[in-house]
Amino acid sequence: MLNIRHFPLQRGTARIRSMDTVPPHPPVAIRDTSLRDGLQSIARTVPTEVKRAWLRGLHAAGLRAVEVGSFVPPRLLPQLADTAELVADALALPGLEVVVLVPNLRGAEGALASGAHAMVFPLSASRAHSLANLRKPIGDAVADLAAIRAARDAAGSRCAIEAGISTAFGCTLQGRVEPDEVIDLVLAALDAGADRVSLADTVGYADPAAVASLFGRVRAVAGERLAGAHFHDTRGLGAANAYAAWSVGVRAFDGSVGGIGGCPHAPGASGNVATEDLAYLFASMRVPTGLDFDALITLRGRIAAWLDGESLHGAVWRAGLPKTIARAAA
Amino acid sequence: MLNIRHFPLQRGTARIRSMDTVPPHPPVAIRDTSLRDGLQSIARTVPTEVKRAWLRGLHAAGLRAVEVGSFVPPRLLPQLADTAELVADALALPGLEVVVLVPNLRGAEGALASGAHAMVFPLSASRAHSLANLRKPIGDAVADLAAIRAARDAAGSRCAIEAGISTAFGCTLQGRVEPDEVIDLVLAALDAGADRVSLADTVGYADPAAVASLFGRVRAVAGERLAGAHFHDTRGLGAANAYAAWSVGVRAFDGSVGGIGGCPHAPGASGNVATEDLAYLFASMRVPTGLDFDALITLRGRIAAWLDGESLHGAVWRAGLPKTIARAAA
Repeated sequence: MLNIRHFPLQRGTARIRSMDTVPPHPPVAIRDTSLRDGLQSIARTVPTEVKRAWLRGLHAAGLRAVEVGSFVPPRLLPQLADTAELVADALALPGLEVVVLVPNLRGAEGALASGAHAMVFPLSASRAHSLANLRKPIGDAVADLAAIRAARDAAGSRCAIEAGISTAFGCTLQGRVEPDEVIDLVLAALDAGADRVSLADTVGYADPAAVASLFGRVRAVAGERLAGAHFHDTRGLGAANAYAAWSVGVRAFDGSVGGIGGCPHAPGASGNVATEDLAYLFASMRVPTGLDFDALITLRGRIAAWLDGESLHGAVWRAGLPKTIARAAA
Repeated sequence: MLNIRHFPLQRGTARIRSMDTVPPHPPVAIRDTSLRDGLQSIARTVPTEVKRAWLRGLHAAGLRAVEVGSFVPPRLLPQLADTAELVADALALPGLEVVVLVPNLRGAEGALASGAHAMVFPLSASRAHSLANLRKPIGDAVADLAAIRAARDAAGSRCAIEAGISTAFGCTLQGRVEPDEVIDLVLAALDAGADRVSLADTVGYADPAAVASLFGRVRAVAGERLAGAHFHDTRGLGAANAYAAWSVGVRAFDGSVGGIGGCPHAPGASGNVATEDLAYLFASMRVPTGLDFDALITLRGRIAAWLDGESLHGAVWRAGLPKTIARAAA
């Protein structure tokens, strides 16, 4: 009684395949934060020469935005004390947006002096995390942002100011963070003079439904000033959250080669989403990133050697690319 | 110049939060396949008594659908030779749908004799995989399905026949699998008498965009006869793919505690998506699954001991639940 109406099929070669009728996706920009978010969470100090090779490796793999360090007092983060030198090196790499993190006005002055293209100023959406990480209430941090904007303008600098809204999806210290408060903080940051905002799931609490909802709301209020998304893969949802953000129009993502990184004030919050996993996610959907998958995997191996003994993370490096993805296309 | 219009905010307690206005999500059903898909990929034979404890552990953790084994010749898969005994045990567990895999008519006869509630008959969408795994062309496999349907009806059995469309998103042997051919195979399977169909990413090639597209198309042609989704986490996209399928209305998912499982004819295709990772994904989105997260993690630990030396997988077991998820709600 088998009805073989549907199978097997005879097809002409002229048949139009669904794929061919879909317009190509717009590209996605991936920014690597391993030299900053990664290294700040690792106790050892990596020699500047190694960081230079690391940076060149990122650029050679196609990265066109890199967070190279943080202007924090060396006594707090000696691992990042050479940030100004790295900025100078990075500025020589063609087409690279050179980004640094700044926790306060003094850090911003360092960033302005360094010539970095952009600075990320973290604002915690969690009150408890703001006190632990920035050591001040959220309102004071917003005031600092305004002072940074004034200093940037006074210096005649074109350095972009990005407010990085951290713990936007919850906090290991405080627990739940209300989406309404995140929206309010985004608006406050833009009012205070941020050129753009990004949302970070600093501690790996985000879920894809919350990501789609909150990024959708932020896009509605911030428009083109929504810069991107920063996810951790602490509980295996890094790729799912990146897809959810992409599905509501986010086109820029932070990653960290080898998945290194975390937050010193968020216990158990290890593991930035790996840059190579983001590269694979988007390559699998035929979304251009400009990244060279093999070069990223090679760099991951070199980082593993440089950080001998540290835990690296990520998923795709083990299995490699599927047959269905042309290596050049990743 | 800080405009503090937006921050800090004074709020009344009567403010309606967005969350409270969202109706609760309909539940999702998770089926565990560790006793079948997991154990068939592991060389050692687990004693029947251990499998009984495993099965009871799954039921105690809230699983209400379990694939307990496969009716294949014991010389091919001695690990699963006790499937009939396990079916008998499983039928005694209240509210549990007892599922077995059958590769052919003889296997289906075993399933009918056992009293299992449902049988999964795999149909490879990849021509190469069909020859390697089922040892026959796809058209012959569809004819087998029709014979199984005839045998089921002749026996007066109510055992549900599920066509499990494997390699639906690509194949390690053949490479690309055309979505149009998957749709054709779904229609052929339903025509041949399957009560329901599921789609499997047997080798970990699926990406969330392809998942949303293909499951959307299958739902359109199969309606309520689309049973569910079976994902592997080979390249870290298991949760992303489950979210993508859920976002287009899929409400049933296969998992495997500890992420054990793979396909013997798909080199490097290890790692079913972990049942506990699916439980976390849906709990994080406040989608009910009826699963007890702590019980799943405990069972994972027991399985690790039973399979001493085998690699287990999964992501969330390491970090545990975030503060924002009530354990009872997972």
